[in-house]
Amino acid sequence: MTPKLFNPGPVDVSPETFAAMSHTMIGHRGKDFEDLYASLQPGLKEIFGTTRPVFLSTSSAWGVMEGALRNLARKKVLCLCCGAFSDKWIDVAKKCGYEAEAIQVEWGEAIDPESVRAKLSEGGFDTVTFIHSETSTGVLNDLEGICAVVKSFPDTMLIVDSVSSLSTVDIDMDKHGIDVCLAGVQKALALPPGLCVFSVSEAAMERAKNIPNRGYYFDFIEFAKNDAANNTPTTPALSLLFGLQYILGEIAKEGFAARKARHAQTNAMIRAWGAKHGFPLFAPEGRRSFALTCFATPDTLDLSAFIKTLKMKHHFLINGGYGKLQGTTFRISNMGNETEATMQALIDAMDSVLASM
Amino acid sequence: MTPKLFNPGPVDVSPETFAAMSHTMIGHRGKDFEDLYASLQPGLKEIFGTTRPVFLSTSSAWGVMEGALRNLARKKVLCLCCGAFSDKWIDVAKKCGYEAEAIQVEWGEAIDPESVRAKLSEGGFDTVTFIHSETSTGVLNDLEGICAVVKSFPDTMLIVDSVSSLSTVDIDMDKHGIDVCLAGVQKALALPPGLCVFSVSEAAMERAKNIPNRGYYFDFIEFAKNDAANNTPTTPALSLLFGLQYILGEIAKEGFAARKARHAQTNAMIRAWGAKHGFPLFAPEGRRSFALTCFATPDTLDLSAFIKTLKMKHHFLINGGYGKLQGTTFRISNMGNETEATMQALIDAMDSVLASM
Repeated sequence: MTPKLFNPGPVDVSPETFAAMSHTMIGHRGKDFEDLYASLQPGLKEIFGTTRPVFLSTSSAWGVMEGALRNLARKKVLCLCCGAFSDKWIDVAKKCGYEAEAIQVEWGEAIDPESVRAKLSEGGFDTVTFIHSETSTGVLNDLEGICAVVKSFPDTMLIVDSVSSLSTVDIDMDKHGIDVCLAGVQKALALPPGLCVFSVSEAAMERAKNIPNRGYYFDFIEFAKNDAANNTPTTPALSLLFGLQYILGEIAKEGFAARKARHAQTNAMIRAWGAKHGFPLFAPEGRRSFALTCFATPDTLDLSAFIKTLKMKHHFLINGGYGKLQGTTFRISNMGNETEATMQALIDAMDSVLASM
Repeated sequence: MTPKLFNPGPVDVSPETFAAMSHTMIGHRGKDFEDLYASLQPGLKEIFGTTRPVFLSTSSAWGVMEGALRNLARKKVLCLCCGAFSDKWIDVAKKCGYEAEAIQVEWGEAIDPESVRAKLSEGGFDTVTFIHSETSTGVLNDLEGICAVVKSFPDTMLIVDSVSSLSTVDIDMDKHGIDVCLAGVQKALALPPGLCVFSVSEAAMERAKNIPNRGYYFDFIEFAKNDAANNTPTTPALSLLFGLQYILGEIAKEGFAARKARHAQTNAMIRAWGAKHGFPLFAPEGRRSFALTCFATPDTLDLSAFIKTLKMKHHFLINGGYGKLQGTTFRISNMGNETEATMQALIDAMDSVLASM
């Protein structure tokens, strides 16, 4: 039996989502597709907090994370690094041929906006990469603070990855002046992977026009041109778009405010469960994700036996730490469709396993 | 009612494929995923005709069509252009910053290998782009002839798009010395779009190592490194991989030879239907696709009424010509899961519509 995933992505996908994804194929250059595309915009704009169009890239988030650099970076990129995913972005920037420097903090810490101000004051940086919710550590960085600092440097573009935060907390792209905001759909949106949704500020679109060698597949200008006709530059991942239409319908039914409250509540349940067992939180107070929880593994816990028994006996899968944090941390997701009832079932199962150890 | 697609891609997807795609999510950095990845290799290698690994890109074909250039092209690219998709490749090459020239033939004609020899003899080209089956015109180009010519020029890489030919005819990648062979899965493999399968020769892998600024998302070296561990560089489109596993199982059950014979037979049915009505084939004798048929619209046919009635009354959708061929041609696909019975149902419906006009 395949276990239910409480992994922080891909997360569990509902049978209703799979049913929606099983929609008969349609041509992607006709009216039916244009209607599908247009139907996604209001819901996506609401969770991004933007009046700008939201583009649909048939790729994982890394495609747009690289693509955003190819559209916006002129020469030198500053990467804000605090975990596996944000750290990797500097390698990607270098692989594209840019000069790149990092502000590197210990995994588990958040990026200090003042350190960004100090670094940008050195001059020469034209683009900044930033991960709002660093999924590998459970840190929810200070989006508002970082945005305010970067925006105080003219002609400096800010690219924000919101993969495990979008739809669980406010992003407010327009208000904060984010230039590119992007998210893979397999985390907080609870779809299978294969689609990245992203939005681009007017200033960033202007900048892209004058960047040479942007290529085609991730070219923002191509996305905008096709968006004007409710379409995508290349053949899109149709099944995921039908799934996304379903999920956005569910978000509309629940209400975005209620969705955020649900994530706060289910996340609080997991934090309380950890506190009861004396499991320390890995991220600092005030900078903790509401979509997943990362615990530091206490010496008293046989983590691998705990995870294995939970999987074998209860068919629930949690994650035993990402990359160099493997074993020393573990992570539990409350993203997507999880409710107080489903999180309670996980908590009961985890308690039962702990009691038996 | 959504019509059944006899469009040349995306094509009709079977309920069994959707059921396979509805597999519970799994983590993509664990043993279950490695097993899934490994299970796809034998079937993919067979249809590509290669002993090389077949990589899985979460993108449409254009992603790898651009990515192959970024991995292989040094300076100057020759694009073999004979229709909407092959023509566009030269624009994509220029958007990536390469010098690019075309051998351009009229839409509906095939590329003459000797013209390629003459052009390459001028010198300076390091990479050639070629579309085996040009889906916009129904032309099946001379793969063997083009490969033989390009291979006679040392250090010249050949990139082949086989989107609407893979699994319907032999590709024989290794035998012909193709350097990169790629295909989107929404045509001949009858999956929803969102995945591109591709394989890379040893020589091309060596070349890629020394090409700067390849980036990350389509970096062949990253694909190879991850393939060695039965994995992908970034989060893959899991549902499509489960669907592909199902389709490859079906191909194995049917047998590749029988699958090719089925396509030849169902294609012959459509050609015979057209001949009966005096509809001229758009592609030249001997260079016609076995996966789709492109007819030149005769003056006597009200194409738009024909297509509309077929759709409204019989719920079958055929295509009324791509790009500048809209109206002057129409296309019927026999790709994927179509059988003599399903093609006969289409033919009966088309005959009934024609009789009523």
